[in-house]
Amino acid sequence: MRITFLGTSSGLPTRQRNVSGIAVQFPQRSEWWLLDCGEGTQHQLLRLDELRPSQLRRIFITHMHGDHIYGLPGLLASLGLGSTPERIDIYGPPGLEDYLKAVLRYSETRIPYPFQIHTVETGLILQEPEYSVFCAPLDHRVPAFGYRVVEQDRPGSFDVEKARADGIPFGPLYGQLKAGQSITWQGRSFHGRDYVGDPIPGRKFSYCTDTTFCRNAIDLSRAADLVIHEATYAEADRELARRAKHSTAAMAARVAAEAKAQALMLTHFSPRYTPEAAITLADLLAEAQAIFPPTMLARDRLTYEIPRRIPAPLPLLTGV
Amino acid sequence: MRITFLGTSSGLPTRQRNVSGIAVQFPQRSEWWLLDCGEGTQHQLLRLDELRPSQLRRIFITHMHGDHIYGLPGLLASLGLGSTPERIDIYGPPGLEDYLKAVLRYSETRIPYPFQIHTVETGLILQEPEYSVFCAPLDHRVPAFGYRVVEQDRPGSFDVEKARADGIPFGPLYGQLKAGQSITWQGRSFHGRDYVGDPIPGRKFSYCTDTTFCRNAIDLSRAADLVIHEATYAEADRELARRAKHSTAAMAARVAAEAKAQALMLTHFSPRYTPEAAITLADLLAEAQAIFPPTMLARDRLTYEIPRRIPAPLPLLTGV
Repeated sequence: MRITFLGTSSGLPTRQRNVSGIAVQFPQRSEWWLLDCGEGTQHQLLRLDELRPSQLRRIFITHMHGDHIYGLPGLLASLGLGSTPERIDIYGPPGLEDYLKAVLRYSETRIPYPFQIHTVETGLILQEPEYSVFCAPLDHRVPAFGYRVVEQDRPGSFDVEKARADGIPFGPLYGQLKAGQSITWQGRSFHGRDYVGDPIPGRKFSYCTDTTFCRNAIDLSRAADLVIHEATYAEADRELARRAKHSTAAMAARVAAEAKAQALMLTHFSPRYTPEAAITLADLLAEAQAIFPPTMLARDRLTYEIPRRIPAPLPLLTGV
Repeated sequence: MRITFLGTSSGLPTRQRNVSGIAVQFPQRSEWWLLDCGEGTQHQLLRLDELRPSQLRRIFITHMHGDHIYGLPGLLASLGLGSTPERIDIYGPPGLEDYLKAVLRYSETRIPYPFQIHTVETGLILQEPEYSVFCAPLDHRVPAFGYRVVEQDRPGSFDVEKARADGIPFGPLYGQLKAGQSITWQGRSFHGRDYVGDPIPGRKFSYCTDTTFCRNAIDLSRAADLVIHEATYAEADRELARRAKHSTAAMAARVAAEAKAQALMLTHFSPRYTPEAAITLADLLAEAQAIFPPTMLARDRLTYEIPRRIPAPLPLLTGV
C-alpha cells in the first residue's frame, strides 16, 4: 500500500503545505482511495500523474471541519468533466451527505457518475476480499472518526522444490497441499503445513485526525504497520492542543508506542511552526522520536510505501 | 486601478490556470476587492505578497457555478485565522447567502469578523465617494451578473503658475478658482474655468462572465478602459458556446468593439485549448484581434494596471 500526502497543514494552507488529503494506492489495482479532501486537493492531484482522477473509487472523511471537506464538491464536479470514474463511495460523519447535497444543489452541479454517501458508525464499514476498513470515534470538538485500513493476510508460499524432491507429481495434489490439506501418494502421507510457509501478513495502517490523545486512536492503530496521526502542536503548546482538542507530537507518539505500531507519520501541522519560528517541525519530530523512535514527518507530495513484513523462512523440516 | 488575475480557466483548474478569481487594487488605498472566488483562490493569494488577505474589503460574485464560488467558504474561514479584515461585504446573485450560510453551518465555522451578503439586482449596487459599482444580468444557463466598476472623475489640475503670473495672491482665492468660481481682485474678474484643466476622467472596467454574447455586456462595457470578458471557446467551437451559453473569443471582441472600449482582456478559457491542441489560445487571441485589435489574453497572476486617460493640456487662453 502506497500513501501519498496531498496536504499536511492544519486549518489553512501555506505556501508549502495544503490542508488535509491523503491518497492510498494498492498493489495490482488501478483504483485508489482518498482520505479527507480539503480545499485544493484536486489541484494537488494535477501535480501527481500517477493518481488518475478517473480511478478514484472511495473517499473517507474524518470530520466536518472545512480544512477536511471544502475540496470535496469541487473534486466531485471536476471528476464529472473529464473521463469520469465508474462510481464513487464516500464515507463520513453525520452531516456530510446534507452538506454535499446542499452545495451541489446551490451550485446547480450535476454529478454524471453514480456516487453514494455512507454515514459511518463505529466498527467495520467496508469489507472487500482484499481489504477491510474499520472506524471509531476520536476526541475532537466536533464528531470525528479515525480509520483503520487492513489488507487481508495472504497464504504463505508453496515450496514447489520440496514437493518435487519428495516425489509428489506436479498436478492436482499440489493444489490440495497448497490449501493445507493432507494427501496420500504411493502409500505415503504428506501434509500441507509442511509445504506451505506462514501466511504473509496483510499490511494495516490507521489515520487518526483530528483528535487529542484518546484510547480509540490506540485501538485503531493496534500493531499497525503505519500510524498516520495528527500532530497539530508541539508539547510546549500543549495548552493550545488541550483547548482545541488537538494532539501534540508527543501525544501522537504515545498512541503509536502503546499500539505497538511499526512506524508513525506525523501530519496536520499548525502553520505557526515555520522554519524561522522558535519551535519548528524538527522539534515536533524530536519530541515524538524520544517516545517512539520510528517517527517521520509528512510533507506534501511525499509518497510512503508501507513495507510488507516478510515472515521468517520455512523451518527445516525433519521426518517427513 | 490594478487588476490581478488569480484564475483564468473555465470549469476546472489545470496545472497552469486556476478557476475564476480577480483581485482589484486601487491607488492610494490599502483595501482591495475580489471578483469571483473559485476553489483555490486563497492558495493563489499565498503566492502574491502585495494582496494582503486582511485588506480584502469587498467580494463580488457573478453566478453560482462551482468554479466561481467553491473557494469562498475556505477563504472566509482562513481570513478568520490570521489578522482578520475589518469587515467584508459580499455581493452576488440570489442563493449566495443561503449557500454560504449552509456551508459555514455544516462545517461549524464561525467567522470572527463582520460580514454581510448583499443580493444584487440590476443597477447601482455600491456608491462610494471614489468608486461606484453597477451590475446587470448576463445571458447564461443560471442567473449571472456582470459588473461595471467606475472610478469617479477627478477635478482638473489647478494652474498655480498662471494664477501667480496674473497677480492673484496665494490664499483663499485659489480655492474659489479651483472650485470653478469667479472672483474679483483689485477690480479685475477671474474665472475658475481659465485656471482649472479638464476633469481627469475616472477609469472604468467591466467584468462579464459567464455569458454568451448579450446587450447587457455591451452596456456594462460602454466606453470602458478595460473589458474583462469570458472567452470559453473559439469561434470554431461556436456550437459548444451556444449550447452552454458561453462566449467565443469573437463574441467577446464584438462586445468590446460595440461598447467602444479601450481594451479587452479575454479570460475563462476552456481547458481544451492546450498548447498541443489543434486550436490554441493564440487562435482565440487572433480571432478577437481581427474584430477588436487591443485584445489581450489573461493568464494566472498577470497584473494589468488600467492606464489613466490624461486629458489634453489646457488650451492657450487669450483675453483673460
